[in-house]
Amino acid sequence: MGSVLSDRSRFASNIIAEESKLAERLSMKGKRIISLNTGDPAKYFKTPKDMIDAYVKALRENKTGYSKGEGTAELEEAVAKRYKRRYGIEVDRSSVIITNGVSEALFYINSAMIDKGDSAVLFKPYYPQYSAYLNMHGGIPVFGSYNESNDWSVDIDGLKKKLHTRHRRSALKYMLITTPNNPTGTVLGRSALEEIVDVANEYDTVIISDEIYDEILFKGTKFTSIGEVAKGVPHIILNGASKNFDATGFRVGFVVIPGTDKKSGKIKSALYDYVLTRLSVNTPAQYAVAEALNNVATHKKELSKMVKSIESRVGLSYKLLSENKYIDVVKPHAAFYLFPKLHINDLKFKNDTEFMRKLLYKEGVWVREGCGFGSKNHVRVVSLATENILEDAISRINRFCKSNARKR
Amino acid sequence: MGSVLSDRSRFASNIIAEESKLAERLSMKGKRIISLNTGDPAKYFKTPKDMIDAYVKALRENKTGYSKGEGTAELEEAVAKRYKRRYGIEVDRSSVIITNGVSEALFYINSAMIDKGDSAVLFKPYYPQYSAYLNMHGGIPVFGSYNESNDWSVDIDGLKKKLHTRHRRSALKYMLITTPNNPTGTVLGRSALEEIVDVANEYDTVIISDEIYDEILFKGTKFTSIGEVAKGVPHIILNGASKNFDATGFRVGFVVIPGTDKKSGKIKSALYDYVLTRLSVNTPAQYAVAEALNNVATHKKELSKMVKSIESRVGLSYKLLSENKYIDVVKPHAAFYLFPKLHINDLKFKNDTEFMRKLLYKEGVWVREGCGFGSKNHVRVVSLATENILEDAISRINRFCKSNARKR
Repeated sequence: MGSVLSDRSRFASNIIAEESKLAERLSMKGKRIISLNTGDPAKYFKTPKDMIDAYVKALRENKTGYSKGEGTAELEEAVAKRYKRRYGIEVDRSSVIITNGVSEALFYINSAMIDKGDSAVLFKPYYPQYSAYLNMHGGIPVFGSYNESNDWSVDIDGLKKKLHTRHRRSALKYMLITTPNNPTGTVLGRSALEEIVDVANEYDTVIISDEIYDEILFKGTKFTSIGEVAKGVPHIILNGASKNFDATGFRVGFVVIPGTDKKSGKIKSALYDYVLTRLSVNTPAQYAVAEALNNVATHKKELSKMVKSIESRVGLSYKLLSENKYIDVVKPHAAFYLFPKLHINDLKFKNDTEFMRKLLYKEGVWVREGCGFGSKNHVRVVSLATENILEDAISRINRFCKSNARKR
Repeated sequence: MGSVLSDRSRFASNIIAEESKLAERLSMKGKRIISLNTGDPAKYFKTPKDMIDAYVKALRENKTGYSKGEGTAELEEAVAKRYKRRYGIEVDRSSVIITNGVSEALFYINSAMIDKGDSAVLFKPYYPQYSAYLNMHGGIPVFGSYNESNDWSVDIDGLKKKLHTRHRRSALKYMLITTPNNPTGTVLGRSALEEIVDVANEYDTVIISDEIYDEILFKGTKFTSIGEVAKGVPHIILNGASKNFDATGFRVGFVVIPGTDKKSGKIKSALYDYVLTRLSVNTPAQYAVAEALNNVATHKKELSKMVKSIESRVGLSYKLLSENKYIDVVKPHAAFYLFPKLHINDLKFKNDTEFMRKLLYKEGVWVREGCGFGSKNHVRVVSLATENILEDAISRINRFCKSNARKR
């Protein structure tokens, strides 16, 4: 008899677990840990009251049974309206599927689309789950990249070259983009999206666009949804309540598949089957999110307060990190991440993992290493904490770099 | 380029979807549909107030961010205590993982354990997801059976024969039992469990025991958890808040892995990795369930009221179905299902699917066909509705059988 575990299970292991243990150990020894590690706005900003009230109302009204697998009619309707309102995308309820966050959606999409040996395009740096879930289902990532020296925009020529030379026998199932991006905090412009659509068209493949941060935009930044430009090319939009509605712990994600083409129809129908097997997403949370989506004016007010704070926190982090001559950092336009590059040759560390661990151990500052995102010698810095904390944390990072510089 | 979908996706498709569409169509035409289709107590019994209050409190206290992937410390602790209290099983927090219902747990367990060609024991009739998730991951079911003529207890001799003659090259990853059972409503006695443990020991495999109905027990029924008898043999207990705590829509499941053996450790560690990838279960719901688990006296009172009602509803259904000479029905001892066998040769239908559809169409009574549970010519009747409704529904079933009897 072989191993108790499957081959695929190894892809689930997440480097973050080890760091969590180190952080916990240090914390139990009395060390103060400043966590710039988790992208959870609800730890720093109160979840809007209208949504909490609607949640409580649903509970008091005994809306505690299973919902339909694909979500409550109210929430599906509210999501469809949002896409019509914000992006002019014609979708109805049947194009919307509610999931336990975007993570479940990604898991099911990979399970429903990827056979062993199929390939899919991911761009580096990527959100770690993208590659984990693709690999887990036997998929082969074809890596494009976001170009750091070009404001982290997508490197289309590089992608075309990669696709041109790849093994043609493997079906190219999808291209996955993230805009606004985690971990870089940048936004893909309309023309970049149009180029991606052209490539998808040429290779007859599906675009998946993770747009979970699409309302957390800094001054002057314009966001375009893939749904505005992908007309005719099958595409899947991922979103949810976690970030824009500051409700990470509700676990309410949205999948929107606007296309009426055959591929879109098949994917939609398969995802309906998947969500039916697990019965329901948390029901009262769905009522809460539907209400918040429909309270457009209230949401606008709440969101703009939160985004203003986030923008100033990210701005501060950017300013302070820019003063550090051992790193380079691109200014983010959205979300709440910075993804600075370490001048690793000028530092006494062999890579970003060692940097991250020693920074945690010595300075109590907890960031995530770039290699988990497919980009070595970077670290991800979440800038959601208050300015005092960020100032403290980043001056620790800067001091840490200085005192660990290699002599020239 | 091949299909847009994966091979495995076909296993997600669930026959129930088609019936849902028929039911919806009939309902829109003004037909009254009596649904005896979904095992959702929260549609018929108010979710207990202490749990709702705790849920509201968590929301008002802004517990709206991500929890740890494996669950809040409070809930893990409360679940561990429950197992110590009810079954004398020594577990601590680290043996408990919180999931989005038992469905997510089952999905992850299959993903983490099953490679293509591995086998696992399921017993007919089974909950449909068991086979769907096993097949989806390339697993091969080895079917044991619960014996209808022996109060639906497990047929150990049949199982031994099956295992003895099976293809030895395939790793036997687990044996999955359900007690109390869905769809039969029966409970495995201690000696049956001991025999299962012996077989698992002989074949060096893991036992998974789905015990989600372990408190919905009718008068005189004694329940034994696998954890009480499996000592030394690796086992995974599945449970949650959905049924015992009448909170299906909260989506809070528990995985308990009490063993300190190597296999248990590996499975636990892999499941930790899986739950980390999807970040968190609904956070305020976890606080609600922790509170309800700790309010032992309140829960006992609430539960006994609900179980008393359920027992009398199931008893009524049993009595009425027993009067129907075209079916045989075993009396349930737990849960809220009956799984009568149709004398299909005495009826004008070719199988249970046709029976179910025509019953829905003609009489507006919606039950589930046995073939979805791996047992043809049966139907599952959920007995949660009020006695008036059940009386109406079952007299319709009985009338329907009578008027569709074959002439002899």
